[in-house]
Amino acid sequence: MADEKGFTLWFTGLSGAGKTTISEIVERELRARGSKVEVLDGDVVRENLSKGLGFSKEDRDTNIRRIAFVADLLSRNGVPVITAAISPYREIRDEARETMGDRFIEVFVKASVEVCAERDVKGLYEKAFKGEIKEFTGVSDPYEAPPNPEIVCHTEQEAPEESAQKLIAYLEERELIPAREAATV
Amino acid sequence: MADEKGFTLWFTGLSGAGKTTISEIVERELRARGSKVEVLDGDVVRENLSKGLGFSKEDRDTNIRRIAFVADLLSRNGVPVITAAISPYREIRDEARETMGDRFIEVFVKASVEVCAERDVKGLYEKAFKGEIKEFTGVSDPYEAPPNPEIVCHTEQEAPEESAQKLIAYLEERELIPAREAATV
Repeated sequence: MADEKGFTLWFTGLSGAGKTTISEIVERELRARGSKVEVLDGDVVRENLSKGLGFSKEDRDTNIRRIAFVADLLSRNGVPVITAAISPYREIRDEARETMGDRFIEVFVKASVEVCAERDVKGLYEKAFKGEIKEFTGVSDPYEAPPNPEIVCHTEQEAPEESAQKLIAYLEERELIPAREAATV
Repeated sequence: MADEKGFTLWFTGLSGAGKTTISEIVERELRARGSKVEVLDGDVVRENLSKGLGFSKEDRDTNIRRIAFVADLLSRNGVPVITAAISPYREIRDEARETMGDRFIEVFVKASVEVCAERDVKGLYEKAFKGEIKEFTGVSDPYEAPPNPEIVCHTEQEAPEESAQKLIAYLEERELIPAREAATV
């Protein structure tokens, strides 16, 4: 069994940018290699840790701090974590980075509001543009892009598989995940 | 290195019964054996996951469900966890047991209200009896003792070290922790 090295792939990006899609591919690949992994998706966390919180800056910050608290607990015990919440505010992401040190790997899942709105997988942008959803990141609420993320996934140009492959390559290079077995290459 | 087996020592008992004291001894012993361990103390969790929640039944339940969510995440990834919150309601503890299956080990830290109030380590019982603290478990709020805990620590009769030793012996018997090295016996 490989050494267990905890880390947190901290996805950040607009709704519809591709965070969940890419995280699912990376999760599958890690499991295929016999690695542990936990995905802390925005919706899962809101349900289990943050019910009752809204989308004001204060409530968003609290939600993200809770995700960081749990990601830290897991990753410092050797468990790979993927967080896939919008996490729009730079300051709170930087707090998470400070807590986790070099276990924190920031992944900017980048796509413009226009492209995300075109995709509109959950139909949320339409409602946001009509004003039916308030405080919607990128429309009526700010998104602060990370200035120095470890990795950028340009999902307007890259397919999700390409973005995922880039992340896997990064993790391999840092020797944070087991190598793929020769037979499967 | 020993196999890593996740489990949750789920302490339950009144304020002042000895949960934190015993958990600290067990934590130290596990670390001395090279085992991982995370302690989710009531106060730590309220600070990091449940700020803003009060002590109504509903808020207590939410707090305990969050502890269970995190304990499950850790223990299913091979990390030993100790939770040390009062967790007064049977139904929610049973939910946690259902989620974690045989990883869930209920530890009833047992002492009467009278004895806990005599100890009154944090001065809380005095305030509760005067009515300065509302909804205080055992005084003005219910405590539902577990009918079938895996382990009972009778802290009116046992020293904290004895209680801790009982827990360690139980974990050894179930082969959930590394044996103590011969040299240290």
